Amino acid sequence: MKEKSYVIAVVGATGAVGKEMVKTLEKRNFPVKKLIPLASIRSIGKSIIFKKKKIDIEELKKDSFEGVDIALFSAGGSISKKFAPLAVKSGAVVVDNTSYFRMDKKVPLVVPEINAADIKKHKGIIANPNCSTIQMVLALKPLHDKYGIKRVVVSTYQAVSGAGQKAINALLNESMLKLSSEKITTKVMGKQIAFNLIPQIDVFSDGGYTKEELKMVNETKKIMHDNSIQVTVTCVRVPVLRGHSESVNVELKKPFKMKDVIIALKQTPNLIVEDDVKKLKYPMPINAMDKFETFVGRLRVDDTIKNGLNMWVVSDNLLKGAAFNAVQIAEEIIKM
Amino acid sequence: MKEKSYVIAVVGATGAVGKEMVKTLEKRNFPVKKLIPLASIRSIGKSIIFKKKKIDIEELKKDSFEGVDIALFSAGGSISKKFAPLAVKSGAVVVDNTSYFRMDKKVPLVVPEINAADIKKHKGIIANPNCSTIQMVLALKPLHDKYGIKRVVVSTYQAVSGAGQKAINALLNESMLKLSSEKITTKVMGKQIAFNLIPQIDVFSDGGYTKEELKMVNETKKIMHDNSIQVTVTCVRVPVLRGHSESVNVELKKPFKMKDVIIALKQTPNLIVEDDVKKLKYPMPINAMDKFETFVGRLRVDDTIKNGLNMWVVSDNLLKGAAFNAVQIAEEIIKM
Repeated sequence: MKEKSYVIAVVGATGAVGKEMVKTLEKRNFPVKKLIPLASIRSIGKSIIFKKKKIDIEELKKDSFEGVDIALFSAGGSISKKFAPLAVKSGAVVVDNTSYFRMDKKVPLVVPEINAADIKKHKGIIANPNCSTIQMVLALKPLHDKYGIKRVVVSTYQAVSGAGQKAINALLNESMLKLSSEKITTKVMGKQIAFNLIPQIDVFSDGGYTKEELKMVNETKKIMHDNSIQVTVTCVRVPVLRGHSESVNVELKKPFKMKDVIIALKQTPNLIVEDDVKKLKYPMPINAMDKFETFVGRLRVDDTIKNGLNMWVVSDNLLKGAAFNAVQIAEEIIKM
Repeated sequence: MKEKSYVIAVVGATGAVGKEMVKTLEKRNFPVKKLIPLASIRSIGKSIIFKKKKIDIEELKKDSFEGVDIALFSAGGSISKKFAPLAVKSGAVVVDNTSYFRMDKKVPLVVPEINAADIKKHKGIIANPNCSTIQMVLALKPLHDKYGIKRVVVSTYQAVSGAGQKAINALLNESMLKLSSEKITTKVMGKQIAFNLIPQIDVFSDGGYTKEELKMVNETKKIMHDNSIQVTVTCVRVPVLRGHSESVNVELKKPFKMKDVIIALKQTPNLIVEDDVKKLKYPMPINAMDKFETFVGRLRVDDTIKNGLNMWVVSDNLLKGAAFNAVQIAEEIIKM
């Protein structure tokens, strides 16, 4: 019997995440009957390469989703708001990488290694969580299952690619200007990012927290199905191209032995323990780039508190943080 | 009466910190009778500019300290170990920027805004704390005085200049190679630092912690005269030239109102509250560069715990983190 194959639309196919979605579909050998790369009218004339074939970008329109089985969206919240329901109406299942539907009670928010079963409850749209949330919960879930998590204090070190292709170009351009001793004026990120840090990601919201920080708090609870997990977050943009890093301090409910923690982490699919300080081995963004896996290291007992643990979690924000997680969800959809 | 003036030696005068020590003596209008810039034999032939006068570097030798009133050391722990006692024997008071004497019970470890009185107990050597420690305790002290600190969870974002002039050059060179799409081979920091993060500063020690992380734990207790303060630390090198940043989560003993916290921080000398999220104002390393002050912002109530507070602290690691703090100590010495 020939394997069933599917018509897949990628909305925002020319963006930093969209490009990785196309590459990931190919790398994972996803059964694609037809790939439809969609973007705004500005991208008309551009094309993508999928399985060595050139495919022209099509303009995203109301009727773009006829015959589409699965639509992967990554073109901003306002595009998802307008076009995701149209895609669903046309019969497609939407995997949305924006934040627009994430906290909607009718929309499952899924990290397949953690709550793939939630996909079954979908009503047409499944949300892909925030990049920083995904890699953190992947490392937290085995600990929560085994010991229960009471509280998490996390500080992020987020790459510019989380803000899209424009931000990647901005970091490279600003760096070049700085190295040429020229004045940096191209502040795509609002502030200079080259050789600097910006302790703000997304807009400010309640209590002085940014939306990015609140996403990590709220999405963690929703994905883990546990509103009792306490999470406090500081999100910072760093001059790194790709790969988000997180310093995660965890207070567990039950006592643990480090060797058991390591076993639990190692048993988690797509999570790699990289922790050998004698050999100076620990996760770093340049090593996580282009990898589907998330890396955890710098595991240390935090004895300032009962059952405390420090760890360092790194992942390619465009892959597990976005494109790979979305394609994993699509893989689950076709399994069901 | 003419103001008394002093013979000052700067050991390691050609290094990243040494150069700032010379500049800071000038900027602070320190009463210098004679400045003696000392360095290893490799630096012979070099000179420094002090108050528009060129002064040749002298080779550091056993007899370099004859007639010296105050010697500022910043040439590495082994140099301090060998030469600081010789300087003391010659009658100089040593302000040592290395970690060598910091935890010695006979040596005061001083941040003048916090424990200037400790200087009086010196027996010839006063230690300058670690750069990351200084800026953190400056922001913690007013909170500790007013509410008591129970526990601190801190993640650092440390500039390359903390590792000296070689590391500054390495970041610039590696960045240039990356922008030219050339292979990065000059790994002065052990690993690539351009467009990357290295979650290791100094060598590894007990429990998987680095020495840098343990310095922040132990020095905080010594400076604050309180062994009950619990501090857990993750130190990370970031591709920033100058200015260390810290994401600091604090658990206080008593309840606080944010407006009172802000008042207490504002009353601390050399600490500036830069926290207006409506105007997108918060501390950033590029703005802290060349400033003597330490900047604190992103102040938020952390409601995942009783009396919790998040803040973001940034300071020029070569100034308050090193040269400025050392010169402040020298200023206290001549006052006494």
